[in-house]
Amino acid sequence: MSDVTKADADARDAADPLAGYRERFVIDDGDLIYLDGNSLGRLPRAAVDEIGRAVREEWGGELIRGWRHWIDLGRQVGDVLAGPVLDAAPGEVVLSDSTSVNLYKLAGAALSARPDRRVVVVDEDNFPTDQYLMQALAAERGLTLRTVAADLDEGLSTDAVTAALDEDVALVVLSHVAYRSGAVADLPAITRRAHEVGALVLWDLCHSAGAVPVPLRAASVDLAVGCTYKYLNGGPGAPAFLYVRSDLQPVLRQPIAGWFGQRDQFAMAGGYDPEPTIDRFLVGTPPVLGQYGALAGARIAAEAGIEPVHAKGMALTSYAVELYDAWLAELGFTLASPRDATRRGAHVTFHHPEAWRICQAWQDAGVLPDFRTPDRLRIGLAPLYTRFADVYEAFDRLRRITADGTWRSYPAERSRVT
Amino acid sequence: MSDVTKADADARDAADPLAGYRERFVIDDGDLIYLDGNSLGRLPRAAVDEIGRAVREEWGGELIRGWRHWIDLGRQVGDVLAGPVLDAAPGEVVLSDSTSVNLYKLAGAALSARPDRRVVVVDEDNFPTDQYLMQALAAERGLTLRTVAADLDEGLSTDAVTAALDEDVALVVLSHVAYRSGAVADLPAITRRAHEVGALVLWDLCHSAGAVPVPLRAASVDLAVGCTYKYLNGGPGAPAFLYVRSDLQPVLRQPIAGWFGQRDQFAMAGGYDPEPTIDRFLVGTPPVLGQYGALAGARIAAEAGIEPVHAKGMALTSYAVELYDAWLAELGFTLASPRDATRRGAHVTFHHPEAWRICQAWQDAGVLPDFRTPDRLRIGLAPLYTRFADVYEAFDRLRRITADGTWRSYPAERSRVT
Repeated sequence: MSDVTKADADARDAADPLAGYRERFVIDDGDLIYLDGNSLGRLPRAAVDEIGRAVREEWGGELIRGWRHWIDLGRQVGDVLAGPVLDAAPGEVVLSDSTSVNLYKLAGAALSARPDRRVVVVDEDNFPTDQYLMQALAAERGLTLRTVAADLDEGLSTDAVTAALDEDVALVVLSHVAYRSGAVADLPAITRRAHEVGALVLWDLCHSAGAVPVPLRAASVDLAVGCTYKYLNGGPGAPAFLYVRSDLQPVLRQPIAGWFGQRDQFAMAGGYDPEPTIDRFLVGTPPVLGQYGALAGARIAAEAGIEPVHAKGMALTSYAVELYDAWLAELGFTLASPRDATRRGAHVTFHHPEAWRICQAWQDAGVLPDFRTPDRLRIGLAPLYTRFADVYEAFDRLRRITADGTWRSYPAERSRVT
Repeated sequence: MSDVTKADADARDAADPLAGYRERFVIDDGDLIYLDGNSLGRLPRAAVDEIGRAVREEWGGELIRGWRHWIDLGRQVGDVLAGPVLDAAPGEVVLSDSTSVNLYKLAGAALSARPDRRVVVVDEDNFPTDQYLMQALAAERGLTLRTVAADLDEGLSTDAVTAALDEDVALVVLSHVAYRSGAVADLPAITRRAHEVGALVLWDLCHSAGAVPVPLRAASVDLAVGCTYKYLNGGPGAPAFLYVRSDLQPVLRQPIAGWFGQRDQFAMAGGYDPEPTIDRFLVGTPPVLGQYGALAGARIAAEAGIEPVHAKGMALTSYAVELYDAWLAELGFTLASPRDATRRGAHVTFHHPEAWRICQAWQDAGVLPDFRTPDRLRIGLAPLYTRFADVYEAFDRLRRITADGTWRSYPAERSRVT
């Protein structure tokens, strides 16, 4: 067993090459330990400036002329993310709408490109919105939804996905990093197998982007979507991104034919004739303030680079697993994530039969984790601002409130919004 | 002819009951006269505070706990607008996505509710995104698009719409106030005629909301969408709103089945089972910062009330028409809007064969109007902050640069983004 001391945690922080990035964020919480950066990333100092400037100088001062900055902002942020964070080429990534709307657009486009195939493959470990959207889309188009069983702790098996693939599959929609367990799917292998049967693949990168490398170009991924408010620190409800491989852009046609996809948009011509570029996947007027938040966050992620961020994420989650082994296993917790760090994103999850009551007690002890039904504590360890000392301190508080029964005074019943 | 003097304009301002609202906006442009509030409304002082507070205190300080404020924000803004601005009931209006995405959702829901009907009616005066979306949606569902001819200056004829209606019409999609001319369609009469043949009606309120009364409840309108960044001063790309009459909410089903529409959303259940309320028309994570901008703008509009705003809008556009009669008609301009003030929104439009070159010269003379192809100058007279003296001064500059040929030094060729 490793040397579980505060001094050891401090030593790890002292050796952390990304330690300086913490200063780039507004952190004035006192004793609070934030372990939910995988739901909402912290506020970059640069975002305060960018958004404040955009409000006062651009909206307030430039008024309608601000569009000279705003018209390309979504592509600008996409290009910031493309190379250093997502392994995509310039012009392959753009901000647009929400992840859910983007899933609908890209899945719709993919299904229209495979009109003779009748099956959409999803997996049961996928995020609920992905499942709802594909259920509805399949029903609307008279297609069959084929759901791959998954291990909710260990993640998606490539073999299980492969077994669901045949020449009748139009589209495969999967999460790269599972939202509950943090398990990483084998994106290159699954993409290759899907291509072997002629299917298109749409990856949900919500829990990947800014946490783990995403080999879009290396694996020749067709389509992807993701959000910018988690590890990319873009702000609450910041616009999502979408990726379409460059050769697919001119041939795919998405269903929501809005004017921001139109060729020579301001000619106000009568017939829909979309741009042959990533712009055809845009729809309506973009959320400018949210885009500036996303820009500030994306720049930090791009500057840090995904390889160092990934290395630190693995080190942090591994440290959490060490503390679990040392302190928590004997208190009724079990690991709900892969033990192999290379198979995890930047969050790690634990089961406990009293997870919800413990979660409330832990919050009152100054730690913000995430709860996931029915019995999971999900710990997001955002690499850009989380310290090893934070993990030590948070887990120290967790073992105390669990061991001394503090959690017993909290209700077992959950309120609706968690 | 009226007494066209600056003193007369000042007298009108002195008598304006809404004059005090100008102070609610950040206006430090010096000599600039802003006549494009129908494309992007000005910045409310309260928006600077709301957005700044949301960034620093909620995102930066409350972090994920900010959702206790954010989860209902879209409905909160909808309820602010519902009564005083839109004549809707609480729970019938919500912020969501962009106008274009909302058009797609509501039109999709309406078409699914009329599965045996084969025709969608639009009009040629409708905004391009409405036309593109309906073209694509009709094509996707194998329906016929029936386009009603319109007079692009005088607006939509109720008789022309009526002539396009029969028992095969599923949905009628029209703009209440035309984006070019500002002509107001007869919403109650058209809605009634559509209902007589059993069709649903979806009104685009982008140029109406915050400019003219919208008798949604009085006319028993089925569906409506609109944006918040024009007369509602919500900020660039602020989220759009959608309206669904309460009795239709539980029975309509929109195509983009995202998790924000799901009953008990955070239970993360596997099957899509939407809320029976306006929430089922939501899709993904809402753009929080944009919503706060929309909240600040909506509150001002609600406080002022739509009747005084409408009265001032008519007075301002009528004053512009007076100045046109006195100064511009003899310089080659012609009116491109209805002459009857009750048939106009809060913008008024003029033709001129050299409109584009004049537009550029006018901008350099410190006025921001809008140009619309091929030969229109569109003048937005946002009632909450535009003064009669602004109209006088702007038109005085316009007649000078037109009369003295200043415009001849500007290029006739347009750049792509106007």
